[in-house]
Formats: sequence, structure tokens, C-alpha cells
Amino acid sequence: MTLVAQPQALHFPQPLALQSGASIAQYDLAYETYGRLNADRSNAVLVCHALNASHHVAGVYEGQPRSEGWWDSMIGPGKPVDTDRFFVIGVNNLGSCFGSTGPMHTNPATGKPWGADFPVVTVEDWVNAQARLVDALGIDQLAAVMGGSLGGMQALSWTLQYPKRVRHAAVIASAPNLNAENIAFNEVARRAIVTDPDFHGGHFYAHGVVPRRGLRIARMIGHITYLSDDVMNEKFGRELRSAVGAAASDYRYTTQEVEFQIESYLRYQGDKFSEYFDANTYLLITRALDYFDPARRFGGNLTKALAAACARFLIVSFSTDWRFSPARSREMVKALLENRRSVSYAEIDAPHGHDAFLLEDPRYLALVRAWFDGIARELSA
Amino acid sequence: MTLVAQPQALHFPQPLALQSGASIAQYDLAYETYGRLNADRSNAVLVCHALNASHHVAGVYEGQPRSEGWWDSMIGPGKPVDTDRFFVIGVNNLGSCFGSTGPMHTNPATGKPWGADFPVVTVEDWVNAQARLVDALGIDQLAAVMGGSLGGMQALSWTLQYPKRVRHAAVIASAPNLNAENIAFNEVARRAIVTDPDFHGGHFYAHGVVPRRGLRIARMIGHITYLSDDVMNEKFGRELRSAVGAAASDYRYTTQEVEFQIESYLRYQGDKFSEYFDANTYLLITRALDYFDPARRFGGNLTKALAAACARFLIVSFSTDWRFSPARSREMVKALLENRRSVSYAEIDAPHGHDAFLLEDPRYLALVRAWFDGIARELSA
Repeated sequence: MTLVAQPQALHFPQPLALQSGASIAQYDLAYETYGRLNADRSNAVLVCHALNASHHVAGVYEGQPRSEGWWDSMIGPGKPVDTDRFFVIGVNNLGSCFGSTGPMHTNPATGKPWGADFPVVTVEDWVNAQARLVDALGIDQLAAVMGGSLGGMQALSWTLQYPKRVRHAAVIASAPNLNAENIAFNEVARRAIVTDPDFHGGHFYAHGVVPRRGLRIARMIGHITYLSDDVMNEKFGRELRSAVGAAASDYRYTTQEVEFQIESYLRYQGDKFSEYFDANTYLLITRALDYFDPARRFGGNLTKALAAACARFLIVSFSTDWRFSPARSREMVKALLENRRSVSYAEIDAPHGHDAFLLEDPRYLALVRAWFDGIARELSA
Repeated sequence: MTLVAQPQALHFPQPLALQSGASIAQYDLAYETYGRLNADRSNAVLVCHALNASHHVAGVYEGQPRSEGWWDSMIGPGKPVDTDRFFVIGVNNLGSCFGSTGPMHTNPATGKPWGADFPVVTVEDWVNAQARLVDALGIDQLAAVMGGSLGGMQALSWTLQYPKRVRHAAVIASAPNLNAENIAFNEVARRAIVTDPDFHGGHFYAHGVVPRRGLRIARMIGHITYLSDDVMNEKFGRELRSAVGAAASDYRYTTQEVEFQIESYLRYQGDKFSEYFDANTYLLITRALDYFDPARRFGGNLTKALAAACARFLIVSFSTDWRFSPARSREMVKALLENRRSVSYAEIDAPHGHDAFLLEDPRYLALVRAWFDGIARELSA
């Protein structure tokens, strides 16, 4: 049965105080829900998105059969997160560019688009905004919060900011903070955007242009870090560009034209991304990644930082993920165990690198299914 | 004793046929030599450079005490490659921007700078040009050819193109070709340069500008791949930018300003590089890396490709080098052994990533010293 998704939005007229000290006077959040909230409002699952995704997590839009949500393999009727049993909420984060209030919207103080003046938002700020949405939906406690990558950071942060409101948390392909290399890749991507002459200091909307060159480069860098070395070699290797009918067999000796398949793939991904993603959002979201570091105010001690959590955890990593390696997941597992928290940990032997968390690996999906089955059993107990 | 280096240049008036099918009518090569050629001209060592280095391999220029050559820890009087015993030649490659003929020079066909019209050059072309320099210096056979990274590819190619003219080859931190991820990083760097509006299709010299933004991004990407994750975490970690007197202790919540030390480091490296490196040279040299693949005309069979070599090899890799990992060096070792060639292989356990080949690791330097001592003994035998 096809799940038909229906985007919704809620307006929040109360100011939201942000971690930076700034605040946002009012905002909208775009969201979707799938399944039905049960009578005691105990079966809600919040799904947090990563860098370039949105509230459109599962299902398709009416009449658009190819508009599957970004985690449609995971969430839906009969799927690992079964919407016949759970009430699933997808929400677009503040500062994003898919419906929630962000840099492209009007800054009420100036009457012009926020642009680069949109306040810096953090994972903690997003969680606070999401909590208000959960309030508005009449839910006191979430059966689970889940997310991959940056979404996993939000799930983790929920357990620290609202420990009583989260019974379970699934933190997938994530990390307790970025390391220097992660920040470095983000910074290069940001510099590519900010130094694009079409960026205009972040106020490019007024100039009728988009810093596409920078966005393309940012996305190309991102894609390299999403894939494993192995899968890149297997998928592209040193294969030459496509020629008429088949792969070309000879070098054409060019520095500016496509020679290898991998180049063609990256250019395509960059072009596509630059057509729909907002440059200011890219800066905001990569910065939220950089800033996330719950251990920071505990002098770097993650065990102390995670002491506040009382949810039951599922932590999943993927063997070839070099962006957020299994070692980073194990740091979280260790800190939780040192706090005697309940945690299931799986390292999935998958070839796909960081991207694996979005793919249909049968062992991975079976694992998440079993974990949610356990939660469902608790509901009916 | 300080080694004083003296840059020289030779003009080659004969056309050089290039692998692409094009040819270059005439050209200059910048080079330096250290030590003295012995009476039977048997003690010459050719050093090949990598992406951004030059013929200035060792020593300092007169009156410029801080102008050390890029491999000064390796080469000089009493050093592992001892210039009291060997006659060492450093040469700047065709298409580079440090003295040899390159894109900034005048294209005799147009009377204007070559720019993006400079012919695509390959590792094989460089070796052919180097062989003519070796001829001009009156040397029939090299005691050794050596290089790290792209320089190692040239050393390997010497043993295939001129097997009788190379007695020993040191191939350090290198690979028998680039994998898809290596090409991907090169491609992003090139796109950053080519899409910089100041690139002007590669003819920016006429516009009195330099595509600095693109060069900065290219260099930042490069630097990430030169360093290991470990050394980045150790050197920078999540340390915040420097404030007055010490590292800052608080986030300042900014998307465009420097927040972390690693950002400041990368920006500095990018700025510095963009001031001296030629954008067209960057394209040419990364393409030479992409194209190098001696196994290609043997259907990908490296063993068959290396059958032509008869030099004795030293192959060195570094444990944390993820750009050219030890596995890539072992491919070469395996192919050489399958051809029953003499090969010494060492994997140095060093934290520094790809950059390690340029650093003063005592075990690494001792190993190279011992290998060259063996060559020196052959000379005096």
C-alpha cells in the first residue's frame, strides 16, 4: 500500500531563545506525519534529518509516484519503523530551505530576506524547536527519536535536553562531535560558497543570482566524503566517461573536460544540488554540525555529558563510513555504558560508506525493525 | 656545512613528441645539481618532484638562509642521499611554474602566453624531457631515480621507459595509478579553479587577474588529503581560533568567520598557495596524476606492465597515508616480485599521513640512508 504524504506547517508565534544568545521572534516549521497517534499518545516517533533532507521522510505526494521521502526504505506501513503501529513525525529544521523558516524568508525586522543575517542555529536549538512542535501535537513523551548523521546528533541531543520526554533513541552513522577533518571539509565547502562572487555576502537574493559555483563545489566535496573508497572504486574506478553507446576507451587529454566517470558523476551531483539548495542554509547546517559537542561544557568528558540521558539507545555504525567512523559511535557506546545506560550497538559491515544509513542493507533494516518491534511490544504491554 | 644551491636552465631546441599526440616545439628546463659527477659518470641521482615542488630540492640560495630545498632533510652533505658521494639532479617539470617552460610562458605560435593552450603533459612526457636533460649532462645511466608521491610515479616510469638507464629506483608514498577517490579530489580542485570567474578559460594573464579563489579552495582540499586524521586531531582537534594571548574559549557563532584552528590553518595555506602557484599548472599537474597508469595498456595487469623494469627498487609507504595508502605500494611490490625483481619494501609507522614523505622521521631517513649506502658501495666496488 502506498503511503501518501501530506506536508503541513505550524506557526510558532513565541520567540525562541537560541544558544548563541540571539533569538528568533517567530517561525514556521514544516512537517509531515505518518500513521496515527494512539489513544494514550505513546507511539510517536520523531525523525530528525541530516544536511540536505527535509520533513518529507516517507511516502509519496499525491500524484507524484517518484517523490519518495528520503527514508522511505525505513519508514512506512510494514516497514522497519512501521507506520501501522507508530505515529511518525518528520520535521524540517529551522534555517533549512524546504519550508521551515530560513534565510530565504523575510526578516520581520527589515522586511527583506534574512540571507546571511539569519541567526546561527545549533542542534540544541533545533531540538528546542522540535519540542515545541511535539507539544503542539499533544505529545508529552516520544516513543523514540531517531536520525542518521546530523540527524543522529539531534536524537542524542534530545536525550540530554529532554531526558524525560524520550523513551528510546536511535543514533545512526553519527558522532558525538566533528573531528578536525570533518570541520576541515565543511570549511572548504563554506569557503567555496562564501568566495563565490554571486554570494554577495549572503544577500544574493536581492541580486537575482545564486552562488551556484560554490554550491557545486560544496556538494562535490560532500559526495566524496559520503562514499567509501571501496564503493567509489567499484562503481567508477578509473572508467572513462561515457561515449556514444559505451564507455570511451581512450584518453582525450584534456584538463577541463570530463575524462573519467567519477568526474561526470560529481559534476552531475553538484549541478543538481545547486539548483535546489540554499547557500545560506548550507552554511548554517554545516556550522550546526561543527558546533555540536555535548561534552564541551564537561571539559571534553563525554561520559559526564551523557549522564543526563535516560533513554534506551540503539547506536549503529557502518564499517566503511570514514566520515563518522565506527570508532566515533563506540565513543558514545562507551560513555553510555559507563553511565550504566541501556544501549544496543551494531557495526554493519557495509561497503557504501556514510551513505549506507540511507540505503536498503537487509541486515541494517532487519536490525532497526527488531529494535522497533521491541518498542511496539512495550506499547501493547 | 651549508649547501649553496644554484638554479640553472637548459634550452632544448628539438621538438618533444607528447603522449597526447601533440608536441612542444622547444622548451627550457630549470634544474639544480648538488655534489660532483664522478669520473665514470656513474653516481648521478635524479630527484623527481611532486605537485607543487620544483628543481630546488636541497640547500639554500646564497644569502637566503631560509630558502631550503623541499627535500633538504633527505639530500645534502652527510645526509641520507649524500651529496659528498652522489651527484644529485633536481629538475622542474614541463608545465610547472618555477622556471621550466609552462603555461605562463609565451606560446611561439601566438606570441601570447600559453595559458590553457599549453599541451597536456603526462608523467611519461616528463620522463622523456628529463632523459634529455640527463643526456645533456653527459650521463648515460643513473645510479638512482627517486621521488615521493607524483615524484614516485616518475621514478617508476623511468624504470619502464628507460630500463637500461636506471640502476635503482626509490618510489616513496606513491601508487601505480590514482583510484576513483584520488581523481575525485583532483576534479573538485580543478572545478574550483576553472569555475572561478577570474580564470577566464585559462587566459587570465591577459586580464591582469589570477583565479585566487579557486586556487585557495584547491589547496585547502589538497591539504586535507595530505594530513592524516590522527595528526589533524592532534594538531588542531576542536581547538578554537587564536584570540589575544591564547586560544579562544567560547564559540562566537558565525558561519563566515574563523571559529576553529583548523579553519585558520587551511585558510592560511590556501592564501599562501594562491600567491605563488599558477592555476593552469595546477590543472596540468593534477591531470598528469590522473592519467598515470602504466598497467592501462596491459589491460590493467600491473605485473605485465612492470615486466619491463630491471632496476632495483626501494618502495616506502606510510601507515597513515590515506591518499596513497600502503596497499597501493604493496600492489607495486607484488607486481615486481612476480617479475622476480629486486625490491625492498618498508611501511613506516608514521602519524603524519601523506606528508610524512617530506618530514624528518628518523626511521624513514635511516632506511633511505642505508639503501643509498648500498648504492655507494656498488660505486666504489
